Amino acid sequence: MAEEKKTMSRRSFLTNGAVAAGTIAIGGGLLGGFNFNPAKADENANGRVAWPLPFATLDVEKAKVIGYKGYMANQCCYGAFDAVMEQLREKVGYPYTAIPSEIMLWGGTGGAGYATLCGALIGAATAINVVVHPKDQMNKLVEELFNWANTFEFPQYMPPAGQAGKAEGKLPTSVSGSPLCHISVSNWCKASGYRAESKERSERCGRLTADVAGKTAELINAYYSKTFVAAHKPAESVGECMTCHGKGGTLENTRGKMDCIQCHDDVDTNNLLDHIKTVWNL
Amino acid sequence: MAEEKKTMSRRSFLTNGAVAAGTIAIGGGLLGGFNFNPAKADENANGRVAWPLPFATLDVEKAKVIGYKGYMANQCCYGAFDAVMEQLREKVGYPYTAIPSEIMLWGGTGGAGYATLCGALIGAATAINVVVHPKDQMNKLVEELFNWANTFEFPQYMPPAGQAGKAEGKLPTSVSGSPLCHISVSNWCKASGYRAESKERSERCGRLTADVAGKTAELINAYYSKTFVAAHKPAESVGECMTCHGKGGTLENTRGKMDCIQCHDDVDTNNLLDHIKTVWNL
Repeated sequence: MAEEKKTMSRRSFLTNGAVAAGTIAIGGGLLGGFNFNPAKADENANGRVAWPLPFATLDVEKAKVIGYKGYMANQCCYGAFDAVMEQLREKVGYPYTAIPSEIMLWGGTGGAGYATLCGALIGAATAINVVVHPKDQMNKLVEELFNWANTFEFPQYMPPAGQAGKAEGKLPTSVSGSPLCHISVSNWCKASGYRAESKERSERCGRLTADVAGKTAELINAYYSKTFVAAHKPAESVGECMTCHGKGGTLENTRGKMDCIQCHDDVDTNNLLDHIKTVWNL
Repeated sequence: MAEEKKTMSRRSFLTNGAVAAGTIAIGGGLLGGFNFNPAKADENANGRVAWPLPFATLDVEKAKVIGYKGYMANQCCYGAFDAVMEQLREKVGYPYTAIPSEIMLWGGTGGAGYATLCGALIGAATAINVVVHPKDQMNKLVEELFNWANTFEFPQYMPPAGQAGKAEGKLPTSVSGSPLCHISVSNWCKASGYRAESKERSERCGRLTADVAGKTAELINAYYSKTFVAAHKPAESVGECMTCHGKGGTLENTRGKMDCIQCHDDVDTNNLLDHIKTVWNL
């Protein structure tokens, strides 16, 4: 993708921001913590454990270490999920002891080798969902995680010298601009020059898992300490394109928050008529 | 995407099949069932429930009904996950009673509104992972589910007359060619003429959740009865493009099994030199 002759320049369309801001407005305010649970699982009348599971404050640095080790043992999705779940097994015990982290193995390589949603994000989102509710607040944390991941220079985590799982030393970094494994890996290969199946790429994904695990622990802690603020937004193109293509738009023919111009041709936003003519072959 | 002037024609590149088949070869043989568990959870030495959780034969039609109702209550990811988990809570009890299906709410709308991996597939893959092991066999089931979903005419499930959650009657169908929510919804909107936030689109996703839930129950049952056969493959372009771009290829600069030409320009495979010239701007 990045090697293709695509016009990737940023557009001036809607740069006054008013409409775009209205479209991609996300809850940037301080979100209050709801229903803080003591460290004991609630049960429904029928004896079933109720959602959310009990929260206990997470150790961010420990999350990174568990996430990294989890990647080396069982890939990214397991690692990011276990970074939270293992701490809660130790601190809370049941019902976390009844949920093996292996139930998220499938997310490795973006879902059974498909390279869709980054497996570390799949595992992390599930971990957030286990302890954070209600649903709309939980989704705000997950969206913030995805928005952050799109702009973060992965990887930053460094294993202790001599203890790297796949490759020692500093690694090149890259920004994926996408929550998709396929794009994230491709961009890093381009930036680093390493091959997609190299031990360095695997090491990069292990460290990325640690970065994601740490951020996830931070977000969950912030939510429960009532200090969570959504600080990242989807790509600029989302607000622009969705003005017509998204909810309430003239076309309303799609949905989503992935950067549109990573897959679609860029639009000369000073000349929407050209875009329409091209699309409709006029 | 579908409205854009893209050359989507199929190519003759590698149509002798030999190299492509080698690249996308998937386990098409009969997969034996491993480690069939009696309906009692194994525990590790430290008192933790061990993966996989106990299996019990699933009712495929019931999975569809639970999946559909789950969608209407809590969106697609919850619905597909609950279609399996609720049956196992009823048949097996613990430890399923300790895992609320709400832990998969985040996958609705392809992940907190991001429209990445289809939420029904996220929930279904997690459900498969809960009961099927070892990992490589579990991943084969998940890949088969994704490959099947890419080619299936969604939606087929019909709620009983008068009991539809969002919209009664037959709905138009479409094939997404992708496991991504964004593409799946866009293609259905184009095929049906309905808007992305219409009640008909929501109904369509509810019925899709039922279809995915039914297929998932079928796959899990087939695995445990030793009759599972992988019957679907990734898109043709994957084998073609990955010959150079994938594992072991000259470039090896990406990974994945999503149809390449849904996002990338098609390549005149009788003239690879042109492709190289274009990419490198020669």
